[in-house]
Amino acid sequence: MEAIAMSTCLRSSSSSSCFSKKSPCFHLLSFSVPLLAKTFKTHQPIHRQLLTVRNCSQITSQPSSDNKKKTINLKPDEKLRALREIFSKPGIGIDAYIIPSQDAHQSEFIAECYMRRSYISGFTGSAGTAVVTKDKAALWTDGRYFLQAEKQLTPRWILMRAGNYGVPTTAEWLNDVLAPGCRIGIDPFLFSSDAAEELKGEISKKNHELVYLHSINLVDEIWKETRPEPPMKPVRVHDLKYAGVDVKSKLSSLRSELRVAGASAIVISMLDEVAWLLNLRGNDVPHSPVMYAYLIVEIDGAKLFIDNSKVNPEVMAHLKDSGVQLRPYEAILSEIESLAAQGAQIWFDTSSVNAAIVNTYRSACDQYLRKVASKNKSGASERINGRTAGPTGVYRVSPISMAKAVKNKAELEGMQSSHLRDAAALSQFWAWLEEEISKNVVLTEVDVADKLLEFREKQYGFMDTSFDTISGSGANGAVIHYKPEPESCSVVDAENLFLLDSGAQYIDGTTDITRTVHFGEPTSRQKECFTRVLQGHIALDQAVFPENTPGFVLDAFARSSLWKVGLDYRHGTGHGVGAALNVHEGPHSISFRFGNLTPLQKGMVVSNEPGYYEDHSFGIRIENLVYVKEVNTPNRYGGIAYLGFEKLTYVPIQSKLIDLTLLSTNEVNWLNEYHSQVWEKVSPLLEDDSASQWLWNNTRPLVKQDLYLT
Amino acid sequence: MEAIAMSTCLRSSSSSSCFSKKSPCFHLLSFSVPLLAKTFKTHQPIHRQLLTVRNCSQITSQPSSDNKKKTINLKPDEKLRALREIFSKPGIGIDAYIIPSQDAHQSEFIAECYMRRSYISGFTGSAGTAVVTKDKAALWTDGRYFLQAEKQLTPRWILMRAGNYGVPTTAEWLNDVLAPGCRIGIDPFLFSSDAAEELKGEISKKNHELVYLHSINLVDEIWKETRPEPPMKPVRVHDLKYAGVDVKSKLSSLRSELRVAGASAIVISMLDEVAWLLNLRGNDVPHSPVMYAYLIVEIDGAKLFIDNSKVNPEVMAHLKDSGVQLRPYEAILSEIESLAAQGAQIWFDTSSVNAAIVNTYRSACDQYLRKVASKNKSGASERINGRTAGPTGVYRVSPISMAKAVKNKAELEGMQSSHLRDAAALSQFWAWLEEEISKNVVLTEVDVADKLLEFREKQYGFMDTSFDTISGSGANGAVIHYKPEPESCSVVDAENLFLLDSGAQYIDGTTDITRTVHFGEPTSRQKECFTRVLQGHIALDQAVFPENTPGFVLDAFARSSLWKVGLDYRHGTGHGVGAALNVHEGPHSISFRFGNLTPLQKGMVVSNEPGYYEDHSFGIRIENLVYVKEVNTPNRYGGIAYLGFEKLTYVPIQSKLIDLTLLSTNEVNWLNEYHSQVWEKVSPLLEDDSASQWLWNNTRPLVKQDLYLT
Repeated sequence: MEAIAMSTCLRSSSSSSCFSKKSPCFHLLSFSVPLLAKTFKTHQPIHRQLLTVRNCSQITSQPSSDNKKKTINLKPDEKLRALREIFSKPGIGIDAYIIPSQDAHQSEFIAECYMRRSYISGFTGSAGTAVVTKDKAALWTDGRYFLQAEKQLTPRWILMRAGNYGVPTTAEWLNDVLAPGCRIGIDPFLFSSDAAEELKGEISKKNHELVYLHSINLVDEIWKETRPEPPMKPVRVHDLKYAGVDVKSKLSSLRSELRVAGASAIVISMLDEVAWLLNLRGNDVPHSPVMYAYLIVEIDGAKLFIDNSKVNPEVMAHLKDSGVQLRPYEAILSEIESLAAQGAQIWFDTSSVNAAIVNTYRSACDQYLRKVASKNKSGASERINGRTAGPTGVYRVSPISMAKAVKNKAELEGMQSSHLRDAAALSQFWAWLEEEISKNVVLTEVDVADKLLEFREKQYGFMDTSFDTISGSGANGAVIHYKPEPESCSVVDAENLFLLDSGAQYIDGTTDITRTVHFGEPTSRQKECFTRVLQGHIALDQAVFPENTPGFVLDAFARSSLWKVGLDYRHGTGHGVGAALNVHEGPHSISFRFGNLTPLQKGMVVSNEPGYYEDHSFGIRIENLVYVKEVNTPNRYGGIAYLGFEKLTYVPIQSKLIDLTLLSTNEVNWLNEYHSQVWEKVSPLLEDDSASQWLWNNTRPLVKQDLYLT
Repeated sequence: MEAIAMSTCLRSSSSSSCFSKKSPCFHLLSFSVPLLAKTFKTHQPIHRQLLTVRNCSQITSQPSSDNKKKTINLKPDEKLRALREIFSKPGIGIDAYIIPSQDAHQSEFIAECYMRRSYISGFTGSAGTAVVTKDKAALWTDGRYFLQAEKQLTPRWILMRAGNYGVPTTAEWLNDVLAPGCRIGIDPFLFSSDAAEELKGEISKKNHELVYLHSINLVDEIWKETRPEPPMKPVRVHDLKYAGVDVKSKLSSLRSELRVAGASAIVISMLDEVAWLLNLRGNDVPHSPVMYAYLIVEIDGAKLFIDNSKVNPEVMAHLKDSGVQLRPYEAILSEIESLAAQGAQIWFDTSSVNAAIVNTYRSACDQYLRKVASKNKSGASERINGRTAGPTGVYRVSPISMAKAVKNKAELEGMQSSHLRDAAALSQFWAWLEEEISKNVVLTEVDVADKLLEFREKQYGFMDTSFDTISGSGANGAVIHYKPEPESCSVVDAENLFLLDSGAQYIDGTTDITRTVHFGEPTSRQKECFTRVLQGHIALDQAVFPENTPGFVLDAFARSSLWKVGLDYRHGTGHGVGAALNVHEGPHSISFRFGNLTPLQKGMVVSNEPGYYEDHSFGIRIENLVYVKEVNTPNRYGGIAYLGFEKLTYVPIQSKLIDLTLLSTNEVNWLNEYHSQVWEKVSPLLEDDSASQWLWNNTRPLVKQDLYLT
């Protein structure tokens, strides 16, 4: 899958990954809004009241009949009206509300119940932010989705084409349209702490206040019973033979890092980090084998915050064995408060942990210090060994992100093995498709994607696709995040280039591959573009580079051949991939954006996917996954290691699309060597004759006929 | 000349150039230190008193006999003692003093009278900082100079090997060795405003105070009459046929930029910027055709601060014609004060303008505002059209830097023409050297450099070398900034690789070229390394890239072939070069360091100089100058221009050192095409037969004999 979404995010957040985030997995809120400020008559500030309400929402998981207002299937503009009505309720009192795409964990793929921005705006693209004021509503999305948003938004919505010249950011727009000194509400679970702080700073320029509505998500309030249930799929243990390292060892390494950093605990909120650290896998969201959960690891214990119903006895035993206790998912904030009250120094990666959690900790720390100060009566805080006692946060990049990115031997073996099975399924698929098209069978882009799924499903350990298959014929191939829909998609035929970007989740690994093919006669233009993309792919694949080189240093290798004739592509060249985990992961990347300084390290998996897209005509992308390995160079200048790539993906690249006159001898040799490896590795996995024959035909060495002439 | 010095600096200061800076051109100070606080009995604060003293120092340019203490030819450790004695004098009162390498203009090459760090420490390398406390003395320098510093420093000096693991910065060291709350003195003319502010921030962590000694340089105090006179060389007009744009037009463009930025004046302190803007050239420092001067450009006038004796009637008329008035060099601070008092909004590039100037402006602004406030009696400042009236600084990158870097047609023509004459001189030189060595004549590295100068001097418009010639035989070639000394240098012979990096200042252009040759039989190791460096050179030369690409994106092209076998080089690949100006200029560069985001632009000149250095054995570098041009690509994806390079340097690359089996057909073609151009362009300039014959022999096309085998 190509890397634009990821690298766009990495631009603003250089060291961590970038995916979406949404609110935690509470049941439907069971109280009507006016109750909010009344239910809890305590002397706690409103912030604390709200917080407690949210935590208690679990108690009554069914909405009471009192609150079953006739809000089912609201029309788009009715939703806006209903949302604005809540603005002025007691305990709310806001002038605007921001609805991002995220869940509470920065997930790329999110459960339907968290798709609040889609619900409120009607725009269903994967990326976007809705902002509603008392009299305006605006939606920001990027270039991939301008057309879709134009179609889906009603006239009451202003479409903000993010990235276009002169288009303001959400904060700039709010500063522009609101009178100074307004209150702008957010659900702090849906913003990383960093994002919330940045927003707060921006809107403070016009004296606006950022109001953290911990206890209520306003969209959920109007969504009510039409809102889908949160996912409750069972969790499974990820076998040690695939994980490579047991949970105790992982926790022990993590605890060493905590000690070095002076932290007594860490909060882990990225779902793939929780899954990786605990050798667990889930099924709560499409494409990613993760479960909604938070994890707190302390020096002497660990607590997993998860809905109990997802945990079977085997998982329970697995966790117990590693000293991990279970807590309800929604107990996370109260646990944070209790840790702060005990003086815990908690490590947060504020680029991913949400503002609700970080703010709860900070408030609890303040409370702790006030208490100590009043006890001492001196007004000074307690000091132990010259150090201020009491909780203080450790704000650093998550240490799990790097540990997870650098694959161990078992993880790499799982990736290799699953990639070969995936290659077998793809060989069967391409053999089938070539045959069907030669027989003039009419197949749509969706038919083709469905058939590919059928072939993959037959492979051992198949679990899911790793993202929505991008199956694009002709002009659709030029739409970088194209998702064919049954009612509108094109036919795959012998007249057009066909771009297929797909991947799978297997029990032992995650795949992601793009091939571009032509079933008829490609034009010379298509062949030149394809060949230049291939040259970029080969140049990056062959790169050798010193340790500590960030990915962006290599990005130009993949573009050089296109640049020579004034061509380019508008996405990154490589993203990290998890081992039987998320198809997009950080912290590394290979991109023309310079923000990500994470060095590529031995064991990291990364995609190599240059492309070229001619609007309204065709799209080309050639994508393999590779992993970083140490190269046995004859020298080691500087006393350091030199690194390179080893391929994981073994599927033929269509020779018909290559203009051999453009390739150097070295490049032809690369292709022939690759195809020879493909045959050697994949043919033993093929039983049926037609796929074998197809693989044989498509892995024959090319001879550069005009070698002596160029 | 290779680019390490420049790129090191660019790392910390991404957008501007990086050269040294030293104190302004005052005559020898005429008062003894104790006089300082006594001479001026005013109610001005000490800061202002000091400032006035410094400005008046010009009055008596000869030291009075009273002050002729026996400090002539002090021994190294006596200098330290004498320096420390001043620490406790009235008006000084410091605990440590920092002596940088710089003059007051951030110049790379500085006049001898400003080499204070060399004088005090005995270490004569071009880069270093000395720090002296009451009981310690330490000198920081980088890897190029560790050996030299070890030899030159007395045991009382601690050598700080900057860049080595665990070596503190000057500020870290001061924070470590001084008790909290000390006073650390600097000469604010010798620090850019940014550098002084950074230092101030660092040392404030230990409550140290940074004391700006405007009026006295403590090293000059002990240097006294042995200190060389400031340079007073005549200034000349740079002919419009070489400059391309007249001064009025340049000033007019600059004034437009001032208006847009909301500035009423700009202070220009970089010597090459002053020279470029006024179409003047000078001769105050070696290698750079510049004169010590400051320039202030206002919306309706301009003032050049320069010693009158340097300005002849022609220059006077030239300046008058462009509305530029003359002021004494040392009147700069009082002019800044007077501008502030008039409410001027002055533009400063604080990365280059020294702290003395910027602080003087800031103090004067404060004084202005206090005056206005007391006049209004309300305590509030005057407001005009809702804006606070009064002077405020505009702190931005110098607009001259970019204007100067992007060469106009006449400048490029001058560069091309001077490069061909330089190539003719080099052809004569190489023909001569080859002949001498074949006759077993014993020639040292210095002899060879001197002979090269002889050949260059015969060319039209020759003025100077553009830097000290790096003439390195065998192991000396591996010393990146090697400077052969007559008493210690090696012989150039048929046994060793010989690296020659040299350049010249001509009336119409500046050259900088490196060639590496062998007069006997190179080893296969030397050939492989040379060939890989050449491949890097070719890859960069052939690069095509989209507009707005910063140089560092291309750096990996130059290293790729070396990386493949685990080799690399520890310097940048390209630096900017002035047109008949400094051999190193910003704001662009091509380097593995990612700090410099300046895009390469059409018309910029840059060096292409990959290398490889095998310690104690040999050094290889291949350097051409090139300029950025628009490439007529068949496509313009994104609607933008695609850029590439056009060569300026036309001197053969020694074929004997090439391992043809490593080169691709494309690379062989590049070399043959280059050599064919060299012959075509340079042979018409050669009259003598031996040089012509040499050029002919060295530009014959190579045939890759084993083409069919690889």
